[in-house]
Amino acid sequence: MSLPFPPDISTLMTATDPVANLQTLIRCPSVTPAEGGALAALEAMLSPLGFKVDRVKATEAGTPDIENLYARLGSDGPHLMFAGHTDVVPVGDEAAWTHPPFAAEISGGELFGRGAVDMKGGIACFVAAVSRYLERHANPKGSVSLLITGDEEGPAINGTIKLLQWAAERGERWDACLVGEPTNPDTLGDMIKVGRRGSLSGRLTVHGVQGHAAYPHLADNPVRGMLQLTSALMDPPFDNGTEDFQPSNLEVTTIDVGNPATNVIPAKATASFNIRFNDTWTVDTLQAEILRRLEAAARNGALRTGREAVRYDIAWADRPSHVFLTRNNALIASLSSAIESVAGKTPKLSTTGGTSDARFIKDYCAVVEFGLVGQTMHMVDERVAVSDLETLTRIYETFIERWFANAGA
Amino acid sequence: MSLPFPPDISTLMTATDPVANLQTLIRCPSVTPAEGGALAALEAMLSPLGFKVDRVKATEAGTPDIENLYARLGSDGPHLMFAGHTDVVPVGDEAAWTHPPFAAEISGGELFGRGAVDMKGGIACFVAAVSRYLERHANPKGSVSLLITGDEEGPAINGTIKLLQWAAERGERWDACLVGEPTNPDTLGDMIKVGRRGSLSGRLTVHGVQGHAAYPHLADNPVRGMLQLTSALMDPPFDNGTEDFQPSNLEVTTIDVGNPATNVIPAKATASFNIRFNDTWTVDTLQAEILRRLEAAARNGALRTGREAVRYDIAWADRPSHVFLTRNNALIASLSSAIESVAGKTPKLSTTGGTSDARFIKDYCAVVEFGLVGQTMHMVDERVAVSDLETLTRIYETFIERWFANAGA
Repeated sequence: MSLPFPPDISTLMTATDPVANLQTLIRCPSVTPAEGGALAALEAMLSPLGFKVDRVKATEAGTPDIENLYARLGSDGPHLMFAGHTDVVPVGDEAAWTHPPFAAEISGGELFGRGAVDMKGGIACFVAAVSRYLERHANPKGSVSLLITGDEEGPAINGTIKLLQWAAERGERWDACLVGEPTNPDTLGDMIKVGRRGSLSGRLTVHGVQGHAAYPHLADNPVRGMLQLTSALMDPPFDNGTEDFQPSNLEVTTIDVGNPATNVIPAKATASFNIRFNDTWTVDTLQAEILRRLEAAARNGALRTGREAVRYDIAWADRPSHVFLTRNNALIASLSSAIESVAGKTPKLSTTGGTSDARFIKDYCAVVEFGLVGQTMHMVDERVAVSDLETLTRIYETFIERWFANAGA
Repeated sequence: MSLPFPPDISTLMTATDPVANLQTLIRCPSVTPAEGGALAALEAMLSPLGFKVDRVKATEAGTPDIENLYARLGSDGPHLMFAGHTDVVPVGDEAAWTHPPFAAEISGGELFGRGAVDMKGGIACFVAAVSRYLERHANPKGSVSLLITGDEEGPAINGTIKLLQWAAERGERWDACLVGEPTNPDTLGDMIKVGRRGSLSGRLTVHGVQGHAAYPHLADNPVRGMLQLTSALMDPPFDNGTEDFQPSNLEVTTIDVGNPATNVIPAKATASFNIRFNDTWTVDTLQAEILRRLEAAARNGALRTGREAVRYDIAWADRPSHVFLTRNNALIASLSSAIESVAGKTPKLSTTGGTSDARFIKDYCAVVEFGLVGQTMHMVDERVAVSDLETLTRIYETFIERWFANAGA
């Protein structure tokens, strides 16, 4: 079929319908890092509502140029931010899709398309929620902003971090933020994310002495040292978890030597590891603990083989993700009670899963995450139940209402 | 300087001078797999002494064609074989040589050149020894053979193995063999090799389940299993050595995953290992022990993680080297006493070091190894003391004399 691209944004009469909003956004093929018309469409939805919209381009050598968007309605506090992204992951095997990934077709009560749940759907619902909120509040107190990046699925260098810096330098301050990523494992209302583990990666190199496999006493096999050091990284566990978080977990993601000759003891071995850590640790204390384990293992290696300590060096990956946990009760309570009222269930407050852009936002204000059901994200036939879009819109609208009420607006 | 190549073999008057023999051989640039004129020169030395010389070409798909030589003097028993090779390793950094590697120049009492000790020197001395022996014994009883390959420094597929098969098929039988490889660590007479450890290599693959580093419970990191399995291969030691051999030793020579993404748990890890083993083991019992260790470690891994056993497979490398130990007292005693008489020292009977072509010969007759001092083998400025060439020639001549006397010739 031929897709209506670019979407005819002049036909947008109102943004109160999340289904129409989402169809418009999905029909913009904004596969990261392409803008694909998605931010233009979003601007066309928000401007009529009174939002002041800025399109913010960010660049950095070695990374793709990225278009972002910041929109604010109102000029005084309290100030609520909604954060998200319009970029989507590639479609994968396009022929395997039941409905074309950028057609936004509805079938059997489901809306199909790349980004349906991750996370154009969340944006579509929030825009609809704000739109409805404004219909009922002619001159609301406080401010609502949307901070939307086009670089969440890519390197995340020219996205949320820079957009926050850009806005903060212009004097923007926020009291709370809702990230609209899909957070529900099975059904809408299952789970709010109130924190995320941190993520720290490192690259370990163990240096040995090359030699002939028949004369091991003249060589020093770095594989032996690497096994000792990586074993020490994996055992014992770093902690048993905390009240709010599951246990920290380290994975050695690769070990490489690249020695093709079985009669040669190699000179060097390298490994990479990644640890997802909870609030027992900061990046600094965790790095110190890792170095302590490596030092101890290197010395034990020495005792065992009668040689000097295992020689190694470590390089930390750039941009570790810091752990965060939101303890803003008003924010969490507003969202929880909205979910309970609309969806009739009490969401679990969770800190599971990978990192999200919330890790950048937490440096500016309290942040929680709640969106659609994530089951089909990044998959062929990504799709959302049409009824979920209406439910989430109502949850968001109720949340806006209650958060401003709690904040004294 | 211009080298006299091919050497003018018509000028060879007699082969009794090991220095002249060696210079002739070094000036043939027989870098493996090239014959380089070396076997032709050897034939020219042996034929005048009465040897029947066969040049034996061996071929196999995927390997270079190789020229070998078999020469026999005499037709009845007892039958003594001398084994060696005329191929040499590459010269390395030719500019770093003090004297050109194929010039065979003498300086400061040393003869410089590639192959000087490994092992054209041994061949040169043996030819001189036989030549002198024949001057003193007009019609000796028994037979002397030289089994010389051009494929010892290469893949060793078209060399000693095939030459032995070729000769055996023609009815050749031997009573004992002396391999002329450099066996002395420091000074001539230090060491006879009376055996060699075996060598067995394998390739281990551990299968996991790929996944996201933030969701380790949905994945199964093969690196963890690989560490458990390779640790079990290295610990505990396979044995404590035997009366004749040092302990067996296993080295993990490489581990490879090749996963560039630190947020991804990989699907597979591979490793290679090589074990040098003593006469506690045969290839069969050793493979069984390795499989036992892997099975136990795979099950322990299961107990620890609560998952099924570590999934792995193993592939054994072709052509393991079997361990061998020579217990032929007459052979060892003839050689030892010759060394004591000529060099005034009692050689150590050793089984240390890598594999040699003796591992193939031991299937046909008792075999020992004795040659020059190995310190400069494979190095820039490979060289031999001229006085050592005379000493080794006298040791070889005395050995021939005594071995035939012991054998009742």
